[in-house]
Parts: sequence; C-alpha cells; structure tokens
Amino acid sequence: MSLRDDALHMHKINQGKLSVNSKVELKDKTDLSLAYSPGVAEPCKEIYEDPNTIFNYTIKGNTVGVVTDGSAVLGLGNIGAKASLPVMEGKSVLLKSFAGVDSFPIALETNDVDEIVNTVKLMTPVFGGINLEDISAPRCFEIEERLKKETDIPVFHDDQHGTAIVTVSGLLNALKLTDRSFNKIKVVLNGAGAAGVAIVKLLNSFGVKDLIMCDSKGAIYEGRPNGMNPIKEKISKYTNLNNEQGPLKEVIKGADVFIGVSVADALSADMVKSMADDSIIFAMANPNPEIMPDAAHSAGAKVVGTGRSDFPNQINNVLAFPGIFRGALDVRATHINEEMKKAAVRAIADLIEEDELSSDYVIPDPFNKYVAPEVAMAVAEAAMESGVSRIKIDSKSVYEKTLKLTETV
Amino acid sequence: MSLRDDALHMHKINQGKLSVNSKVELKDKTDLSLAYSPGVAEPCKEIYEDPNTIFNYTIKGNTVGVVTDGSAVLGLGNIGAKASLPVMEGKSVLLKSFAGVDSFPIALETNDVDEIVNTVKLMTPVFGGINLEDISAPRCFEIEERLKKETDIPVFHDDQHGTAIVTVSGLLNALKLTDRSFNKIKVVLNGAGAAGVAIVKLLNSFGVKDLIMCDSKGAIYEGRPNGMNPIKEKISKYTNLNNEQGPLKEVIKGADVFIGVSVADALSADMVKSMADDSIIFAMANPNPEIMPDAAHSAGAKVVGTGRSDFPNQINNVLAFPGIFRGALDVRATHINEEMKKAAVRAIADLIEEDELSSDYVIPDPFNKYVAPEVAMAVAEAAMESGVSRIKIDSKSVYEKTLKLTETV
Repeated sequence: MSLRDDALHMHKINQGKLSVNSKVELKDKTDLSLAYSPGVAEPCKEIYEDPNTIFNYTIKGNTVGVVTDGSAVLGLGNIGAKASLPVMEGKSVLLKSFAGVDSFPIALETNDVDEIVNTVKLMTPVFGGINLEDISAPRCFEIEERLKKETDIPVFHDDQHGTAIVTVSGLLNALKLTDRSFNKIKVVLNGAGAAGVAIVKLLNSFGVKDLIMCDSKGAIYEGRPNGMNPIKEKISKYTNLNNEQGPLKEVIKGADVFIGVSVADALSADMVKSMADDSIIFAMANPNPEIMPDAAHSAGAKVVGTGRSDFPNQINNVLAFPGIFRGALDVRATHINEEMKKAAVRAIADLIEEDELSSDYVIPDPFNKYVAPEVAMAVAEAAMESGVSRIKIDSKSVYEKTLKLTETV
Repeated sequence: MSLRDDALHMHKINQGKLSVNSKVELKDKTDLSLAYSPGVAEPCKEIYEDPNTIFNYTIKGNTVGVVTDGSAVLGLGNIGAKASLPVMEGKSVLLKSFAGVDSFPIALETNDVDEIVNTVKLMTPVFGGINLEDISAPRCFEIEERLKKETDIPVFHDDQHGTAIVTVSGLLNALKLTDRSFNKIKVVLNGAGAAGVAIVKLLNSFGVKDLIMCDSKGAIYEGRPNGMNPIKEKISKYTNLNNEQGPLKEVIKGADVFIGVSVADALSADMVKSMADDSIIFAMANPNPEIMPDAAHSAGAKVVGTGRSDFPNQINNVLAFPGIFRGALDVRATHINEEMKKAAVRAIADLIEEDELSSDYVIPDPFNKYVAPEVAMAVAEAAMESGVSRIKIDSKSVYEKTLKLTETV
C-alpha cells in the first residue's frame, strides 16, 4: 500500500485518532454519587469560592486547546476548519504521546480575527493552555498577541515559536561545531511568514546582530517602498542594520547562516558558494527544501538541516511543543514568555553532548525520550524564575513525571 | 469520611475526571508519518473534497460537546462557567461509561445568548452532537431553538428533554400499572422551568389532553394577567383547556397525575388526598422532593417517583441521554426530533416487562446495562424512519455495539 492508502486506512479504522476517557470508575451508585450528583456539587462550590482551585479539581491543569481556523494547513493552504481536523487531532496525539498532555482539537468555522479571539476567550475555563495551529499570517500574529493579553493562560502559536525554537536549537549546536557565536555571525533568512518572523525575533533575543530577512522582493530594509506590512516594518527596524538591498543572491554573500522558510529551490549552489566557509543551512521548505542537502554540502556547507525525516538534522516541532506545554502546565504558567522559549532552545541543544556533535547531528532525534522531560524541566524553571508561574514546585519532579508519562502512554 | 470529603478527594487525586487519549500508537517514524505529517494530509484532502467524509476520518462521528454557561448548575444556580466544570466533566464520564460516547466539556464565560449560539456554531466541525447543560430558562429555549436551526448536528438540552423523556417513561409504566391511558388522564405539573416546559410538550405529543401547568402564581391559563412570559403564553394555548384558575391546591383536585419540577414540600398530603384514587406522583425537586414518598403513599398515591437514588423509581436522566446520543451519532443524525424522543420513552419503559411492574418499579435501574443499548437502537431506528439520519444502518448493530462498548469501558 502507498503512504496515502496507509494514512487513510489508519484514520478510517479508528474513526479519527482520539478518545475521551473517564479517569474514574462508575461501578455502582456510590461512584455515581461522587462523580456526579450530588457529590460533584462539592468541587463546584470550592471553585466558586476560590477560582484557583479549578486546577485541583478539574482537567484544566493538564488540558490544552488545539485551536485553528484551517487557513494555513500543512502545505495545503486554506482548506477550512473541517478538513484541518485530522491535523489538529494529530497534534493532540503528539502532545499526549510525547508529554502526557491532554488536549482537544477546536477547529473554528471562521477566519475573522475578532471571532476567533472572542471564541477562544469564552472557552478558556477548561483549558490550561492554548496551542494555535495552522492559522495564516498576518492574522496569526494579531490573534496570538491579543489572546496573550486578554487571557490568563499560555497561548503558543506553534507554527511560529515551535519552529523557531527547534531551528535556533540546531543553530546553537551548529555554531558550537563550527566555533562561532551568535553575536558574530551573519544570518540571512528567506521567507516572511509566521515561522520566519518568529525565528528572527528569537535570533535577536539570542544576540544575533547581523541579520537580514528576505521575502519574494529581496532583502527587507527600513523604508523599502514595496511589499511591506506592519510586521515587516517592525522587523526592518532591528534587522539589516547596514540597510543592504537587493535579492537573496546578493545579500547572501558572505553569510554564515541561511535559514529558509520559503519555497523549494530558493537557494542555489552558487549562492551557497558565495557564503562564508563552513556555512550552516537550514532549508525547511516542505516537502522539498530550498536546496537539497547533498547539493548544499557539495557547495561548501558544513551543516545542513531540513524539515524532512529522511535527511539528517530534522527540524521537527515535536522536539519543542510537548515539553513546553508540559512545563508550562506543571507550574500553572500564565504565559509562555521569551525566557521559557530560550530555556527550551538550550535544553534541546544540550541533549547532544559537545563530543557527539557532528555535521549530521546537531538536532536530537524526535524519538529521544529525554527530550520532553528536559524541555519541560527547563521551561518550568524559567517560568518560575521569570515570575509567570502560579505555583512553585521542584523542577526535577517535572522531569521525572514527564519521563514516566511518556513511558506509560 | 463524608460525601463531601470523598467527592473532593476523588476529584483531586485524579486532577479532574477526563483524559484525552490517542487511539493510534506512535512507536517510530512510520507511525508518525501516518498520524501526522506527511500522511495526515491525505484525510485532510479527502474531507476538503467531500465534507461528509469527516465522519470517516475524524472523531466527529463519536464526539459530543457538553456546553454550558454555568447559569443553572444542579441546585447551585448561577455559579459561572469555571465552577460548573466538574458537572460537565461528570456528564462526559456518564456519556462514555454508559454508551461509549466521547465528549468534551465546553464551559463558556458568557451568559449572552448570541455569544453562546455563535461560539457553538463556530466549534461544530469537531462535534457530531451538542448536549446543552445547566443553562437557565428562558435563555435555554432560545439557545436550543437557534442552534437546532443553524447547525446540522443534533442539539439536545438534557435538563429539558432528558428529564422529560425519563418522566414520561415512568408515567407510561405507571399508567399501565393503574390501567389508565394518556388521553384520559388529568395531569397537573408544578414548575415552569426548563424541565417543566419540556415535559408538557412531550405529554402533549403523547396525547395527554387534560393538562395544567402551575407556577408560583398558580395555574397558567390563556390570558392570565400576571407572571406570564412568551413560553407560558404558548403553553397556555394548548394546555388547561377548561381555563381552570387558582392555586395548585385547587386545580390538583381530581387529578390522576402530579408532576413536580419545583421546590420541596410544594405538594401537601391533603392535596394528594384530593386527587383521584391510585394517583401517580413524580416529585422531582432536588434534593428534597415536593412530597416525601411515604407521605404520598399514606395519602393515597399508588406510584411515587423522585429524583433521588435512595427511593424507588428514580427519575435519572442517565437512563436517556447516553443512549440517545449513541443512536443519533450512529446514524449521523442531523437532529434529535420528537419521534426519536418518543422512541426513547418507549424503549426505557419497555425495559420492564408488564408482569414485573409494581408501585416501586416503573422505572429501570440506571445500572441496568440493557438500557442504553435499547434506547440507542430505538433512537437510531426512529431517526432513520423520520428522515433525519445521514446514513442507513442495521439498528440491531447499534444495540450490539452499545452493549459491547458499555461492557468494555
């Protein structure tokens, strides 16, 4: 059978990929009187008196809403809420399998920013966090920003921050391997969508100074007359400090790092040759990267990563989001802030010892079972230290719990 | 320990009562490539081409949204969305345990009818049905009516219809026991909330002609000058055809049946004495009924039912809603219509053979494992016959599947 047949079969025999199960047994009237009327009134009254006890008595503390409007699904584009549902269920499968996080897919039949924001706000009682998924730019930026301000639970747009965190993790190790540091490299990033914008922001917070973002019109610089929008305007103020102009093939010259979140074949071998020696290439266009790894290596690249599982150094978001939500939930975080994202970057990178690092191994394997525990512990610590946790706990317990959860799922 | 301590303990040790689990195993990259990218794109494309295949490839076909605004929770009143969550989780536990239906609690932070309707409409892709729960009257009527018109999945307000179905089931058996029929009895119903209105409608569709609804101002009649609202106006047009006026104690005289969905002690022994011989009393105020069973029997009542599990003939919604949703989901129904509700009434009543019927046994035990299978089969049949099913199936398979699901849950 083909991948297509296998995938359809898997979805059909199971009628989707999720089930909602009871954690309590109902074998007699006593059980019923505790789980339901009249006993259930007791936790209700507790929560009514002190809303914070909702974390003690309900599923909120371990439950994430996976929210989409179906406008930017995989490489399929705006296929709508209904057709996006298998991806959202898949996300829930990953959250559960990799970090023991319960989640539920919410695919909304609207592309209106106000409606999406309002709907998610109204639903927050049951959720300890919101994972925004496959919402197209630039609406995804506004939706995330508003929900972060207007709710008291973490809101995380994985297509932005998950991708950014794993990319920067890989870059951190690639820099170690090639004896470079963030504040001395020249990075050129191609693609101004959700992921590109988040990567630029995260690189900036890691101290990258020489950073140029390109879109289909070439380098973005302050005051560029065409193809700008409010997001690009903002980015142009803290990137491309030398105001370089021109197409990718011009500004790529001498760069140490290329990061592609754009389209197949956007990077030619000649462009790689024009980069610094031992260049670092993350070519993440799906399914076909900006340049194929062998071509990049032949043209002089030292480290090449892609989005694909059939090449080394796969940039796979599953390395980040399960552990991030695990850590955020365990300390009942109100936000996922920059400190927590940076902690996740370092935790993922540190899973590979310096003496294990090689051109083909700067990013850990997605099935490395220590990834989520390490990320969760680091994120929980960062949340507590940066003051966005509701409770203080021993972060080692987060590690141990996560390891146990993923072993028993 | 007290019930209170036990209930709080049960909720706390489990951190709520539900978990979301994966039905597919993720043990290697192949699994990952089927459940998630790139294989997951295949069911997405199928659903995009033919939206009806969403029932084949996603959880929609077995998943119900349990929706509330927390405005009328148990006997606790308007305690809000957060504090209502344990009850909604409990409902999900019952749906799963009694009929294998997956569901997820959606507690909305608003009491605004338009916001509730709009939010539920936007969320429908993932749900094959909506159970409205603990929403106060009269908003519950408008919300249900609008959602029924504006969505293509069954919408069922359990506090109305679940209660009505089980009550009328019990009444059907009590009539058999006392050799009466629907079209010849006088019924007086006390309480004009959600349940009362639904019971009146359902009795009407079973052919009850002599039917008086009372509220705190006494009998409701057409043109009553005080305490009316649009719902009561409507009811006054097809009930109380003799325009009887006055308090409950007046209009109850000679009645065969009293149905209470009101407050403790609303029915006195003297009122029961003024009823017909061998009267039938369903006194469902919670936690204390309109009259205690022993007092009612002493005053001449033949059959007495309450909402309590510590007396005979418990009117418990769990006899109805799990099987109703099971049957509706299995034929992919677009609505839960009057025919389906009536089928459920008969199925529940028929679980007790005529020669088993007694004063203390007109309603089956909630833990009778054949209830949900019988209800599901009858509801599926009625849906197919009345033209609200998307597919035709063998209704016996619904019975067998339900029996199996509830035995393995």
